[in-house]
Amino acid sequence: MTVKERLRPAGNDVLERLAAALGTGGVVPAEPRYLEEPRGRYHGRAAAVLRPDSTEAVATAIRICADARVGVVPYAGGTGLVGGQIMEQAPAPVLLSFERMNGVRSLDLTDNVMVAEAGAILADVRDRAAKAGRLFPLSLASEGTARIGGLLGTNAGGLNVLRYGNARDLCLGVEAVFADGSIHHGLSAVVKDNMGYDLRHLLIGSEGTLGLITAASLRLFPVPSEIATAWVAVPSPRAALDLLGLMRARIGGVISAFELIHRRAFEFLAETMPQIPLPPAFETDWVVLTEAGEGPGANLEARFMDLFETALRAGTCTDGLIAQSEAQRQSFWTVRETIPEANRHVGSISSHDVSIPPSRLAEFIDRAGPALAALEPEVRINCFGHLGDGNLHYNVFPPKGRDRRAFDTMRATVKSIVHDLASELGGSVGAEHGVGRLKVPDLVKYGDPAKLRAMRAIKAALDPAGILNPGAVIEAG
Amino acid sequence: MTVKERLRPAGNDVLERLAAALGTGGVVPAEPRYLEEPRGRYHGRAAAVLRPDSTEAVATAIRICADARVGVVPYAGGTGLVGGQIMEQAPAPVLLSFERMNGVRSLDLTDNVMVAEAGAILADVRDRAAKAGRLFPLSLASEGTARIGGLLGTNAGGLNVLRYGNARDLCLGVEAVFADGSIHHGLSAVVKDNMGYDLRHLLIGSEGTLGLITAASLRLFPVPSEIATAWVAVPSPRAALDLLGLMRARIGGVISAFELIHRRAFEFLAETMPQIPLPPAFETDWVVLTEAGEGPGANLEARFMDLFETALRAGTCTDGLIAQSEAQRQSFWTVRETIPEANRHVGSISSHDVSIPPSRLAEFIDRAGPALAALEPEVRINCFGHLGDGNLHYNVFPPKGRDRRAFDTMRATVKSIVHDLASELGGSVGAEHGVGRLKVPDLVKYGDPAKLRAMRAIKAALDPAGILNPGAVIEAG
Repeated sequence: MTVKERLRPAGNDVLERLAAALGTGGVVPAEPRYLEEPRGRYHGRAAAVLRPDSTEAVATAIRICADARVGVVPYAGGTGLVGGQIMEQAPAPVLLSFERMNGVRSLDLTDNVMVAEAGAILADVRDRAAKAGRLFPLSLASEGTARIGGLLGTNAGGLNVLRYGNARDLCLGVEAVFADGSIHHGLSAVVKDNMGYDLRHLLIGSEGTLGLITAASLRLFPVPSEIATAWVAVPSPRAALDLLGLMRARIGGVISAFELIHRRAFEFLAETMPQIPLPPAFETDWVVLTEAGEGPGANLEARFMDLFETALRAGTCTDGLIAQSEAQRQSFWTVRETIPEANRHVGSISSHDVSIPPSRLAEFIDRAGPALAALEPEVRINCFGHLGDGNLHYNVFPPKGRDRRAFDTMRATVKSIVHDLASELGGSVGAEHGVGRLKVPDLVKYGDPAKLRAMRAIKAALDPAGILNPGAVIEAG
Repeated sequence: MTVKERLRPAGNDVLERLAAALGTGGVVPAEPRYLEEPRGRYHGRAAAVLRPDSTEAVATAIRICADARVGVVPYAGGTGLVGGQIMEQAPAPVLLSFERMNGVRSLDLTDNVMVAEAGAILADVRDRAAKAGRLFPLSLASEGTARIGGLLGTNAGGLNVLRYGNARDLCLGVEAVFADGSIHHGLSAVVKDNMGYDLRHLLIGSEGTLGLITAASLRLFPVPSEIATAWVAVPSPRAALDLLGLMRARIGGVISAFELIHRRAFEFLAETMPQIPLPPAFETDWVVLTEAGEGPGANLEARFMDLFETALRAGTCTDGLIAQSEAQRQSFWTVRETIPEANRHVGSISSHDVSIPPSRLAEFIDRAGPALAALEPEVRINCFGHLGDGNLHYNVFPPKGRDRRAFDTMRATVKSIVHDLASELGGSVGAEHGVGRLKVPDLVKYGDPAKLRAMRAIKAALDPAGILNPGAVIEAG
């Protein structure tokens, strides 16, 4: 029996019960904005959008849906890139949006913990922390729209994973609603709790298929008072890894970012967004954007200089530029954060979010390019990403002047080449964006069979009717 | 139907099958050393000890036991403090010891990953890393005996959690055998992988009740070339937290330890282990042992001096001593690491491993002492632990000259006072030692009901016959 057979469409009777339970504004029509996603690949269906305003209201809504066997697709910021927030197939589910649960419940400067609701927008959480003199380090291009529930549901990564970890590492505990409508009260403010299975880590990254995160205890950090940020030209990805090794040995506790960017990214920016000031025209194909931060007395700029001098002598870098002001630092980061938008303007054939063990990363780049060129010699690759985490956004674009639509039939082959190679080298084909609906077949193809069996057993145990985000991540067993 | 009814004793037929499958030395009698634990509270039973020498052999043994419905108690270093490695009740299970799987399979200096088998002893793993110029930061008093499988099974904490996290944070992936004998191949070398549920984090800390970890990818770090270590006398636990806040703001990226110790610990050491050189006789009741480390140029000793001068002026510390040599630094740590042994010599009425949100920690200490003194005015409390993690080992001892056995009837009340208060203040009653068998009732008493239901569902889904570490953590539903 498949999920589709088990679930029923959300009919008027169910919607009326939900409207009565959720009150004014609690059930609204599914406007188009809820049914689109950033890359325009999926177009969703939904009978309605639920907008509960409390955890209890989420629980009530889930109980009504469970009772009626109606699928519930959780919706946070809608910025996911793998279709986790979009259900295309019948029967029509309801979307459950956290937009009215966007508050910060508490912020404690001794605990260094902020409790934020699932609908809190990342930029607001960061601002709130900053006003209290703290850093919430999760940072990514969509932070003005992405919401905490989605960021945790997908275990988002971003720019500062190197120092602070993935979203899961920034969360001490969650409050969540399970498929039976029960509420898990797990908003811990302690970093150590070994009383039982770690449901927090199970729910984080499960993309709303095992339970819906309604609030989270988020870890806060000191705001660095000294920050050093630099562009560094490197002769190759291998040299970039050597530079990273040197930086780890010297200032490993305080490096927060180490981004590798191919010059193609700057070409795309120049072509589609000429208003963005680019870094100096280095002679190398590859550039690193790196940053470190610490309290007063860390003397980071001088240590950056020492580092880069050592690296220059060793040939692991050829040139560099350290930001001389906060404005210049911001302009460096604007370049990095605008790359995804420039990519969308150009229009990729296929985009990939892979991670590769660092020891195999140069091999990945050396092999993937020729394999793709064999398909189409003029194909353009824009490879950039979080080298410190082994995470590359390896995006493949049509030759200059050609439209991506001409390559629709090639997409599956391109994707297979990239994913097969990432998998062969021991990497992941879904490093930070998650599985969603886009990569369900990839998980089956590349996933460990014992893991898949265990995942299906867990899904069936926690959501036996399969109402939570049906079809995302994994089909129920 | 309870687990006891479902499981059967390991009879001769099963032991013969196991012996045939595991070969020479694969099944041995259960010598007493396997059936005791450090605090002498539990005395186990086992029909035999299995000593598989490969992951495949573990899988075979598990299949035989599953087929015969025989319980399997995983056994690593035997150092656990909550009876997770000891099964007292019938029917007689088998112990599965990882002592013959103690190798390091690989070590990569670019990935900064070591793959170690479950039976690898922590001190050996640390040594192996050190010889390769890397740090494996997990460090705790029992590291000469504790093995990787047990450390991950219990999500061990230790001295360096503040900077490097708990055991789970030091592990990129696991290989494990599930209750059906299938092998999960998850030895990832990447820090980012969002392809499916995070089984690693589910297995870590599940104490062998959901699957047996057979090997793990462990994260390695640079060895700090500059280390600053200091004793700091603080007027109160609250002042210690203020000092920690100051240190975080100044050198937050590089502090690796911040241990709070009450002078009682030094009294116990002087009384029972006079050969251990103590720190200077500070005037305060409370002392902090703190350490930071980083690469060359970090200038840590000068920054420590600056910090402590600021703290002196603010009244958050009253005195201090920075180690002036590696030998002196080692002697500081010997004191800290010997405290548990001195405690065992004195003999506690009840020992507790609690974590408290830092904002409530002083309140915990202020309230717990008088509540216990109301039971017995001369009771001696030795409170020490990882303040940076909010984790206190809050151990209660009989009055001087009295024997702990005279207080056996008081133990349950003492424990309730401490655990009730930790729970009331939002803490955990099992911070780093786990649940084992000792705290199964505590998990039921203090645990979130929705979490307990989810845990039972997960246990039943992954181990339907309940053969894996029966009776530990949670009874199957």
